[in-house]
Amino acid sequence: MIEPDLTLAASLFEQLHASSFDGVGITRDTYGAGEQRAHALMADNARRLGLEVRVDAALNLYLTLPGRRREKPVVMTGSHLDSVPRGGNYDGAAGVVAGLAVLAGWIREGAQPDRDVTVMGIRAEESAWFPVSYIGSTSAFGLLSPQALSSRRADTGRTLAEHIGELGGRPEALARGEAELRPESIDCFVELHIEQGPVLEGGGHALGVVTGICGSHRYRQAQIKGRYAHSGATPRSHRQDAVVALAALIERLQREWQDLEASGHELTLTFGQVNTDPMQADFSKVPGQVSFCVDIRSRNVDTLRLLDSLLLAAAHELEASHGVRFDWGPVSGSQPAVMDEPLQHALRGAALAAGVQPRQLPSGAGHDAATFSNRGVPTAMLFVRNANGSHNPEEAMAMDDFAAGVRCLGQVLAMRAGLAEPQDPAPI
Amino acid sequence: MIEPDLTLAASLFEQLHASSFDGVGITRDTYGAGEQRAHALMADNARRLGLEVRVDAALNLYLTLPGRRREKPVVMTGSHLDSVPRGGNYDGAAGVVAGLAVLAGWIREGAQPDRDVTVMGIRAEESAWFPVSYIGSTSAFGLLSPQALSSRRADTGRTLAEHIGELGGRPEALARGEAELRPESIDCFVELHIEQGPVLEGGGHALGVVTGICGSHRYRQAQIKGRYAHSGATPRSHRQDAVVALAALIERLQREWQDLEASGHELTLTFGQVNTDPMQADFSKVPGQVSFCVDIRSRNVDTLRLLDSLLLAAAHELEASHGVRFDWGPVSGSQPAVMDEPLQHALRGAALAAGVQPRQLPSGAGHDAATFSNRGVPTAMLFVRNANGSHNPEEAMAMDDFAAGVRCLGQVLAMRAGLAEPQDPAPI
Repeated sequence: MIEPDLTLAASLFEQLHASSFDGVGITRDTYGAGEQRAHALMADNARRLGLEVRVDAALNLYLTLPGRRREKPVVMTGSHLDSVPRGGNYDGAAGVVAGLAVLAGWIREGAQPDRDVTVMGIRAEESAWFPVSYIGSTSAFGLLSPQALSSRRADTGRTLAEHIGELGGRPEALARGEAELRPESIDCFVELHIEQGPVLEGGGHALGVVTGICGSHRYRQAQIKGRYAHSGATPRSHRQDAVVALAALIERLQREWQDLEASGHELTLTFGQVNTDPMQADFSKVPGQVSFCVDIRSRNVDTLRLLDSLLLAAAHELEASHGVRFDWGPVSGSQPAVMDEPLQHALRGAALAAGVQPRQLPSGAGHDAATFSNRGVPTAMLFVRNANGSHNPEEAMAMDDFAAGVRCLGQVLAMRAGLAEPQDPAPI
Repeated sequence: MIEPDLTLAASLFEQLHASSFDGVGITRDTYGAGEQRAHALMADNARRLGLEVRVDAALNLYLTLPGRRREKPVVMTGSHLDSVPRGGNYDGAAGVVAGLAVLAGWIREGAQPDRDVTVMGIRAEESAWFPVSYIGSTSAFGLLSPQALSSRRADTGRTLAEHIGELGGRPEALARGEAELRPESIDCFVELHIEQGPVLEGGGHALGVVTGICGSHRYRQAQIKGRYAHSGATPRSHRQDAVVALAALIERLQREWQDLEASGHELTLTFGQVNTDPMQADFSKVPGQVSFCVDIRSRNVDTLRLLDSLLLAAAHELEASHGVRFDWGPVSGSQPAVMDEPLQHALRGAALAAGVQPRQLPSGAGHDAATFSNRGVPTAMLFVRNANGSHNPEEAMAMDDFAAGVRCLGQVLAMRAGLAEPQDPAPI
């Protein structure tokens, strides 16, 4: 196995940190200055390594080491370069750094692969900025919906089309469905990413091989409308209390979640924001309105549908019993994705060969790998252990764990690109 | 019975509306321009009637018709002249207007009472502005707590002492406990007020005689702290979800409320505001924090204590089961108050004599009458039917109902001031 260039990796993490530390955490805003600096930095480093550098209409970045037979389907890796506001340095970027570290190792050893190997720096994965999932990867396949282009960034209020256009991208080409990637021209896509939950850390595993990526079903702007009334002068039977109705909904759905898990379903359910109206609610008023959001995730599309139907049924009952009205607002979300079995097997073999016992686990978080998988591209993901969760400045990946992950990734890319034999020749 | 001056009453309501309509509703801000204009307007009208006008250190307004025997304990009526932001024209002010209409009727007929009769225009009853109950009436008795003077108005951020001082009041005298009123010098206090709930309207009663005024126990700045985590990547068992804990608390306490009512307790319980942190909460994060407020009211201080102990016990259990921590913040509230039986009897008799069947009911809302009652002054309240609740621009009192209320009030004041015989001579 050719050793990846971990010195380059450390330098890239430092450069990324220096260019996107906001005083509290890391901010690489989607189609804004922070993400743009990260893309420029990766392109510069790639050119210095001698890689081919190109961008598509959505400004996704492709860093390619040419293979001997350029007509063959390309081996791809990579991840996104944006971050949530005040997030951490590794979420997303680690997958791009890992790909460059692998290619830099090969270049140092003069190893030319049999086919092209491309590290992709993907745009706009974090839906904190635009309320659309997988903007960069769906754009690469020419599949971004035209409505998505008129969605607005949460902080600037300007449209996705404006943001892409002002950085030199071509929103009109995206609206036409221009595709940079065709599934049949891609051999595989393997994404390295930090784990965003506590499973690897809790189980003492440095690496995880992802079995599937959850899809989601979301109501981001739901509300319950009741009726404001004096808190002291309004008897219980006369109330139309929006907060009490929401509490009943949340309690009921917690039980549904528990029951579904007990019968074998895998899913998560989160009410991440609840807010009464700052202009109208008061400690001495029965609350007449509350807004909230719901995020349901599962690897199984039937489970998503089932919990959604239970949610709507519970709300329907509460409308009758509590004298309130639910307004769900727009639905958003993404499709679940299945990971490729042979690639999972190869990642496990590479990890075991490196002396690491990997854990198999689903990804509750969404990833661009789901887009590749749902286009029929053989796809896999490798998680690296990470303490303190993601989307915050305290995310913590040990460099030893990252190094083990990069070696696994490099081994699998090498196998697919004709630079190495499978380490575990057992039939798959 | 001497007919009150209802033409003056209509004119006063018009003047009040003109001086405090904010484009949406009525705003007479506590120790601000709105309340000040209402006080100036009432003082001007009182002077025109020939009443004595004086203010105390807290700028409460006293409008007095001198009696023949000025050394005797004074008969008092009145209410507050402030309002919530964008409230209605009648909440509070109707009680001052009613008192002036009664005295104007007596003056027109040349009827001099046996003892002084004073209409009080009370300051600062609405705790929407300062987080302190009954500022005006407790100040009149020299009982405002020194800490209250450094509480800050919700919108201006300036202290109560600053607000009182800049209008010409004497906060330093309040800090010393200077009292304008002594309980032994007051014969009685009778307050007319619109009902703030739906009980009279629902039962078809124009008037209500109040049996007691609820006290309150409040946590206005409570919060639950859990732990933020990725909504998709964090399994149920690993969560410390502040919103789920709050929902469980609200549901549990709704059941406790129901059980207490079933066993004969009278109380209300309201969670009027719930808010996740706008800077940290996200639809894709398990919420690590939520703030909320609790308002418990009852006429019975033991009921207040009992529900509070059930609340704290439920929270204690949730801390263990949900991995969260409750931070209750400061406690505020007020004492319940009992209404005087002979005065209640007199109000009922006056209503029946006027052909109105009054309803007896407790007041869930707090009123300055509670301060008088808790100082040992014989105290009563008369509620006038009002549609659409209070604290909003849609409050709706019919002028016929108001007229019936003013006649009852006038009759009882006349009896107490030696201008009329009791209409129902039955022993009380």
